[in-house]
Amino acid sequence: MSKIIKIAVVGYGYWGPNLVRNFSENEDVRIVSVCDLDKTKLALVKRKYPKINITTNYDSLIKDRSIDAVVIATPTSTHFPLAKKALIANKHIWVEKPFTNTESQARELVELAQKKKKIIFVDHIFLYTEAIQAIKRLILKKKLGRIYYFDSTRINLGLFQPDTNVVWDLAPHDISIMLYLMGEAPLSVAAFAHSHAIKKLEDTAYLSFKFRGKKSAHIRLSWLSPVKIRQTLIAGTKKMIVYDDLESTEKIKVYDYGISINKTSKELSTSGYQYRTGDIIIPSIIHKEALVNACRAFVDSIKTNKAPISDGMNGYLVVKIIEAAQKSLQSGGRPVGIM
Amino acid sequence: MSKIIKIAVVGYGYWGPNLVRNFSENEDVRIVSVCDLDKTKLALVKRKYPKINITTNYDSLIKDRSIDAVVIATPTSTHFPLAKKALIANKHIWVEKPFTNTESQARELVELAQKKKKIIFVDHIFLYTEAIQAIKRLILKKKLGRIYYFDSTRINLGLFQPDTNVVWDLAPHDISIMLYLMGEAPLSVAAFAHSHAIKKLEDTAYLSFKFRGKKSAHIRLSWLSPVKIRQTLIAGTKKMIVYDDLESTEKIKVYDYGISINKTSKELSTSGYQYRTGDIIIPSIIHKEALVNACRAFVDSIKTNKAPISDGMNGYLVVKIIEAAQKSLQSGGRPVGIM
Amino acid sequence: MSKIIKIAVVGYGYWGPNLVRNFSENEDVRIVSVCDLDKTKLALVKRKYPKINITTNYDSLIKDRSIDAVVIATPTSTHFPLAKKALIANKHIWVEKPFTNTESQARELVELAQKKKKIIFVDHIFLYTEAIQAIKRLILKKKLGRIYYFDSTRINLGLFQPDTNVVWDLAPHDISIMLYLMGEAPLSVAAFAHSHAIKKLEDTAYLSFKFRGKKSAHIRLSWLSPVKIRQTLIAGTKKMIVYDDLESTEKIKVYDYGISINKTSKELSTSGYQYRTGDIIIPSIIHKEALVNACRAFVDSIKTNKAPISDGMNGYLVVKIIEAAQKSLQSGGRPVGIM
Amino acid sequence: MSKIIKIAVVGYGYWGPNLVRNFSENEDVRIVSVCDLDKTKLALVKRKYPKINITTNYDSLIKDRSIDAVVIATPTSTHFPLAKKALIANKHIWVEKPFTNTESQARELVELAQKKKKIIFVDHIFLYTEAIQAIKRLILKKKLGRIYYFDSTRINLGLFQPDTNVVWDLAPHDISIMLYLMGEAPLSVAAFAHSHAIKKLEDTAYLSFKFRGKKSAHIRLSWLSPVKIRQTLIAGTKKMIVYDDLESTEKIKVYDYGISINKTSKELSTSGYQYRTGDIIIPSIIHKEALVNACRAFVDSIKTNKAPISDGMNGYLVVKIIEAAQKSLQSGGRPVGIM
Repeated sequence: MSKIIKIAVVGYGYWGPNLVRNFSENEDVRIVSVCDLDKTKLALVKRKYPKINITTNYDSLIKDRSIDAVVIATPTSTHFPLAKKALIANKHIWVEKPFTNTESQARELVELAQKKKKIIFVDHIFLYTEAIQAIKRLILKKKLGRIYYFDSTRINLGLFQPDTNVVWDLAPHDISIMLYLMGEAPLSVAAFAHSHAIKKLEDTAYLSFKFRGKKSAHIRLSWLSPVKIRQTLIAGTKKMIVYDDLESTEKIKVYDYGISINKTSKELSTSGYQYRTGDIIIPSIIHKEALVNACRAFVDSIKTNKAPISDGMNGYLVVKIIEAAQKSLQSGGRPVGIM
Repeated sequence: MSKIIKIAVVGYGYWGPNLVRNFSENEDVRIVSVCDLDKTKLALVKRKYPKINITTNYDSLIKDRSIDAVVIATPTSTHFPLAKKALIANKHIWVEKPFTNTESQARELVELAQKKKKIIFVDHIFLYTEAIQAIKRLILKKKLGRIYYFDSTRINLGLFQPDTNVVWDLAPHDISIMLYLMGEAPLSVAAFAHSHAIKKLEDTAYLSFKFRGKKSAHIRLSWLSPVKIRQTLIAGTKKMIVYDDLESTEKIKVYDYGISINKTSKELSTSGYQYRTGDIIIPSIIHKEALVNACRAFVDSIKTNKAPISDGMNGYLVVKIIEAAQKSLQSGGRPVGIM
Repeated sequence: MSKIIKIAVVGYGYWGPNLVRNFSENEDVRIVSVCDLDKTKLALVKRKYPKINITTNYDSLIKDRSIDAVVIATPTSTHFPLAKKALIANKHIWVEKPFTNTESQARELVELAQKKKKIIFVDHIFLYTEAIQAIKRLILKKKLGRIYYFDSTRINLGLFQPDTNVVWDLAPHDISIMLYLMGEAPLSVAAFAHSHAIKKLEDTAYLSFKFRGKKSAHIRLSWLSPVKIRQTLIAGTKKMIVYDDLESTEKIKVYDYGISINKTSKELSTSGYQYRTGDIIIPSIIHKEALVNACRAFVDSIKTNKAPISDGMNGYLVVKIIEAAQKSLQSGGRPVGIM
Repeated sequence: MSKIIKIAVVGYGYWGPNLVRNFSENEDVRIVSVCDLDKTKLALVKRKYPKINITTNYDSLIKDRSIDAVVIATPTSTHFPLAKKALIANKHIWVEKPFTNTESQARELVELAQKKKKIIFVDHIFLYTEAIQAIKRLILKKKLGRIYYFDSTRINLGLFQPDTNVVWDLAPHDISIMLYLMGEAPLSVAAFAHSHAIKKLEDTAYLSFKFRGKKSAHIRLSWLSPVKIRQTLIAGTKKMIVYDDLESTEKIKVYDYGISINKTSKELSTSGYQYRTGDIIIPSIIHKEALVNACRAFVDSIKTNKAPISDGMNGYLVVKIIEAAQKSLQSGGRPVGIM
């Protein structure tokens, strides 16, 4: 199928301009319309992209039967109603993260899309980075051995937002990466979050996950850190990985490190353990904007009718886990079951 | 009082040689004896320090009334009986961390020392670094404003130990620093620990603390990380600090960073917050071995009869908190009250 | 004067698109035309900026009397003829670095501009970064004391160019920064350059400068380095600066470091010197695209009729120094006088 | 030969204590005597090593026929007379760097040692680091291909010395490494050095070397830098290496990077070159004190009667090159031939 996908973009705020720019550079796509309630923003669209229609009327927009897909980049609380209408109108949908405000909304959309045979693409953008793809390949090739843990830190100063907290804002990134790399969902989560600076606005959070077997995960999030860190450790029986998203050329380091019990040692002492500290390899990663890959993946999903890696089920799972985390942090950190 | 303090060192394993070397270079101290059960180790002492007596008999050692103080650097499980005997024999004591195996042992020693009017010095060595002293001074001068949080990471590969876990091994460092810098004890702790590599031997742990007001603390520990990180963030209303113990000249960075609600903004939007990202100052820190300072502090405590900053109560509190953390992690992460 | 400056941009290759984007966002400017010999490139302009005229005919372009200024972003060898025609046609000119191929061309343009009372702006872009501006302010406020040296490293892998060498390609950056910060021209230069990878194409170069007094400068350049480094050290009697252009938030570090002769020491031994290693300050730098500042400076120069900091004389001096360096490297490294 | 080598150490100043400590821990060595003119220093020796004789009389010391080797760690100007006497007295010698003050002195010692059939070991300590050994192995295995260049930076604040300059103090390290890794001597050197802080005491220097073929080398030295850098780049046709001596676990990075002319490209443009940016490998390096290896190498040389890698000829060459550099810098940077 070589047909051009016709799309409409809804929401031209923080992320919308990136979506319009990227989709407009994708040869298989034509952006028919951009919709926003703010006419000043629509004027910006018109200035930069004179051929794209602009509108404030979403309901009439989705009546346009020539539109194949709707890209939703509006505030989270509006994702559900806008996505639902789009699916009902037989559109494929792209939804920014987090997918919805609640698990039940997410489930409803997933079921509706199944019924309508439409693609849901949740923009868990990090899954489309060359770095995460390279790590996933290493895991699939069993290079890491059995996974021990996933441990991620995503902290910086800002951007506080009044209508959400640091968990809903930042955790979708790490949870979607965690689900993708671990290849399974956690059993439970315990969450601690603190409103240090602004009343009732959690700016720092720690999520602890249990998985089947002895696997674990931990996510550390902050809007209130003097330093920006985006570092993830993933360790397995054979290899360990440090993924530093802020590095330009050395994003991934693969350590041939490990530990084993020293069978030859008679007594169980400190010397009863052997450490392997072999070479470290920094694989060459092609520098490419993740959004280019994500747009490509959305188009491919529509064309081939195959679910993307960040499909509705994936978006649903992320929301479900964040809801459980929210429940845990409101109970003071009690572990909450997920599966 | 200019009298020479006569001391005996018990235990010449991993840390003992450092203690003997440092105390032997302190002009106010004379090491009379070194005691160890292992005669090979005693032979090493004799070779390096021909004037120091060596013995395997602790009981007769502490009968020597000329000895003022006993320095205990043996496995943790022996701290309590050795320390108790020393106090009963009217010796001041220096005990390696962790102080004891249980809170009740620690309390008994504290009470005994009070009765005997003897000094207890627990070797929470980081409190005697120039870096922690510099941070403490900044806090006391109110440079940070009201403290928001303490967030510490201490991870590396190794050293697994068969008779303890990563919490008992590494947390005494961070908990003693946390108590010292926060200036108060936490209300509760929730702990997650995982035995990834060796059965029933926790190699990774996360401790979440609640304090009075909105303050919080978090400690991340690992024996199973490919990278060595020793980084602590301490943020307050006025300034934020990053303390990196692995840096040679830039151990402490003081950030004039902060956030405030923008009163002039009418709507509560993202732009409703103002971020202050002023200068960063790296204070000049004198490079000095912490153990030199610690030995000096022990001697001064004995001479002036004033409690050191890492006194018995401090050692007791650290053990009490670790016991609570241990209880939490055994219950699957349930928060456990401390005070 | 609030009149809109009308400009034409010549050359839409590597840097041209950045110039068109930045000037098109400057409210005091209107881009009337873009000129390039390659019609494919002109088509790109038309697609993105439908209101801008496109042309392949430079001679007729500059006949347009409504155009105030011409921005020249073509290959270096064409700078001189294009700039000369523009000045003759009474246009202000912006010329990419290096200004011209030869000192005599540069001098001719400077003299022509003086006669025509037109502004020459050479795009020594680093002078318009917030970082260099901050360093210049520190120097002007005498914070560094008397300057000792300027030492700059600019190395990475690529971009080899067939018609120039690493000196002509990279040195204009460091030489323009050096002239600006030192506040004076060097007396002589010795240059070593090597064609390691491609025949007769110097990929690595070292320039050593002498200045009046005891001041010195050194510039290290490479197209053939595995690592990218852009680091400049500037030391004075009172303070020393490290400027790292690749750092995002810590571009400038100001060290309160120094050395002095210990007057109290009788013998002239190693201990006869005292080192001052005080605090390090990282001033807060606003993140702003240098090209925005440069475009603003060009417009201001035209409006106020005042020379920009990177005026024709400055561009001339940079070319003169590079010519001297080229002469030195061809003679095997013999120092060549400049002033 | 399993006989114990009996040695005397002359000079117990800055480096002497390290030599005594290391040789005293070598099982094949017995330190018979330590000689120094300063009795306070000798008292320190006696306190720490009661079994070692102390003396201020070098002439009588070397009459002791039981002594096999003399280790000379005195100021450079005394190396030649002390070494000469030791060789005449039929001792093997270990001499600290730089070997001698002049090329002719070095040659005289080399010839004397040949006549006397004695080992000369010059303590070019970096050659005995695991890092340099690992790089040498990579070069010998042709992993780097044909070498392009060697580029070394060794800068920090201090330690100024009254009787020498930064070239004589620091360059022996880099020149000995350069000779060892390049496997050949340079043809010429041009040197620039500057006395910024202290009159007639060069604190900053740049050495540029030419080699046969297109190979080059550059060494950048400073006592007057706010930052400490010890970084060496070595590039070849197949691989490039960054060696950072200040890194603890990542001392060597091997880059599979390179450049080639794109044969398929018709026009010689920027796109006419192809860059290879493959994986980076950080080989695992055993952490071991270089001096342990050096002491071992000295003992092995004596036992096997084979020249060490830092033999007299090597020490001679380093002195010869520094003399040439000194000549160049005194002539204002004129290149001076070496071979």
